[in-house]
Amino acid sequence: MSNLRTPGPTPVPPTVLAAMAQPMINHRGPEFAALIGGVTAKLKHFFQTENDLLILTGSGTGGLEAAVVNLLSPGDQVLAVSIGVFGDRFAEIARVFGAQVTKLDFPWGQPADPAAIQAQLAAHPQIKAVLVTHNETSTGVTNDLESISQAVRGFDKLLVVDAISSVGSLDLPADRWGCDMVIGGSQKGWMVPPGLVFVTVSPKAWQAATQARMPRFYWDLASAKRTLERGQTPATPAVSILYGLVESLRLMMEEGLPGIVERHRQVAERCRQGAKALGLELFARPGYESNTVTAVKVPSGVDAKALLKALREKHDIVLAGGQASLSGKIFRIGHLGYVYEEDIDEVLAALREELPAATK
Amino acid sequence: MSNLRTPGPTPVPPTVLAAMAQPMINHRGPEFAALIGGVTAKLKHFFQTENDLLILTGSGTGGLEAAVVNLLSPGDQVLAVSIGVFGDRFAEIARVFGAQVTKLDFPWGQPADPAAIQAQLAAHPQIKAVLVTHNETSTGVTNDLESISQAVRGFDKLLVVDAISSVGSLDLPADRWGCDMVIGGSQKGWMVPPGLVFVTVSPKAWQAATQARMPRFYWDLASAKRTLERGQTPATPAVSILYGLVESLRLMMEEGLPGIVERHRQVAERCRQGAKALGLELFARPGYESNTVTAVKVPSGVDAKALLKALREKHDIVLAGGQASLSGKIFRIGHLGYVYEEDIDEVLAALREELPAATK
Repeated sequence: MSNLRTPGPTPVPPTVLAAMAQPMINHRGPEFAALIGGVTAKLKHFFQTENDLLILTGSGTGGLEAAVVNLLSPGDQVLAVSIGVFGDRFAEIARVFGAQVTKLDFPWGQPADPAAIQAQLAAHPQIKAVLVTHNETSTGVTNDLESISQAVRGFDKLLVVDAISSVGSLDLPADRWGCDMVIGGSQKGWMVPPGLVFVTVSPKAWQAATQARMPRFYWDLASAKRTLERGQTPATPAVSILYGLVESLRLMMEEGLPGIVERHRQVAERCRQGAKALGLELFARPGYESNTVTAVKVPSGVDAKALLKALREKHDIVLAGGQASLSGKIFRIGHLGYVYEEDIDEVLAALREELPAATK
Repeated sequence: MSNLRTPGPTPVPPTVLAAMAQPMINHRGPEFAALIGGVTAKLKHFFQTENDLLILTGSGTGGLEAAVVNLLSPGDQVLAVSIGVFGDRFAEIARVFGAQVTKLDFPWGQPADPAAIQAQLAAHPQIKAVLVTHNETSTGVTNDLESISQAVRGFDKLLVVDAISSVGSLDLPADRWGCDMVIGGSQKGWMVPPGLVFVTVSPKAWQAATQARMPRFYWDLASAKRTLERGQTPATPAVSILYGLVESLRLMMEEGLPGIVERHRQVAERCRQGAKALGLELFARPGYESNTVTAVKVPSGVDAKALLKALREKHDIVLAGGQASLSGKIFRIGHLGYVYEEDIDEVLAALREELPAATK
């Protein structure tokens, strides 16, 4: 098995892979109702929320689209806080569906400044929702979501959090931090393959949804809630991914959220220290480095493509390159979900070996 | 293993289940590019099309939404031909996204009348697209799509076909019948779990897409086409379902499309004859009975819920009830994908045993 160290899809534990190979069941039957009820309750535990949580079949991006179209009407003002590719994507979805987007960009590698968010909200009282990325996969930066949530709190806005690469791996007390919607994706810390997305909905978000006039059918959360009350989903769900989730949530309950968060911190710290020991520089501003993905600057003279190719072909280690304007400038080591220090040690040892050869 | 005889999810062959348990790979890497390229080419073979075919992560309903939002602008007129629940759903999606929907309904159990479609198109020259269900899962009726396509042909309209429970199981020569979009779903005849949807796009449909102004991001087919050219998908795809599809398409290529279509015909015929031999009446108009799902009228005095429960609990056979206004009035035996005559014989034997007990 490759040492797959992209920030998603992430490796899947053997018992989860085995669980996915169970035969299909009727998604309108009693077995399925028990399955989805149990999985939903456990997910809520890890999202640290009493709000509704809905499981949709799709990629993480679909969850971002669901958030936008369920909360907003065309013409509504939103503040989209972006620190990278996925923040830009969230803003773009809102724009495409007709929101008036005020974009607050921070230089890539930097976190969002809560004071700047506060200033925007003070300057634009019409803003209805704040879209923010908890952990920006493209830059390896974790926003200080607690401070951001405090900055937003005074303004009675909807706080909508893309937590796709954080929730379940980093601490994200959704209710305590007043998050009205939190979006997670199965292929990240949950240790299952891609195909499911999770969206929490606060009472305030449900209230907004009743007013929201953006068109929605597949991503309609009210319809997902109505069918969940009968133990079903509006359309045929990705049953096999749900089987995997039953097993991965069992593993996660066993380890416990505090243990999981601490493991991610330790593994990430080892990755950062090890990279620095190789003379590499980290891309993220110190203090805001993500515990789920480490972005490393490509040293001058190093051909990033050749480096990743050598790691893949000679060591069976798969890292991610940089996205968009960061292509060729950084590479990324994913360490979320099913990951231990040995996995990172392997990556560091291989980097030590291949860096010289990839240097022009 | 249950004898799962719902019209989706359908049983998954053991080698396909095993294939799905393979470890994750990078969806932006060379292995994935080879995988999606191969799967796409084979799917096109079974869709009998030279048009583009795009694989999206989601339920079949997501594919219907993709068709609507990529082809139309708010205010565009469409003719939605409905013969049941899924025809109604297609129409509803178009309405929700702002199309002006002319609905052409036929009584449930009946097929659509091509002459009536022709009359509507003659009466409403502004109609841009015809939405039609090839095989209506809720009623067990297969439309005469060839005649419908001939009726539409004279009018230069877009022909958009929900083939979720037909393509890959019934003969559907998409190009020969001039279908501009054909939508299929993984959990049907393809013998893999739910989670992927397939959409073909003709040159005429691409032309319409450049004009279409309905908002779209997740379901944007142009973006799917652009990324497919690089061997990728816009968002993280359901990798494990794709693994399953590689294996199921291998099995399907081995059997060959004519063999698959003939097997479905034989199995369906056995189901229909067997049901009639038990004194049961079929719901579909004779000559239009579906070869993928048989809808059976609940005999007077029979409690459908008790019957399905007894089949499930005593025989481990899972049938589907009636949907919407057909609840309690019909039950449905799915026979698509991984199904052989023995599976149907088991259902018939169990029905013979349980029908008397379920009669009040």
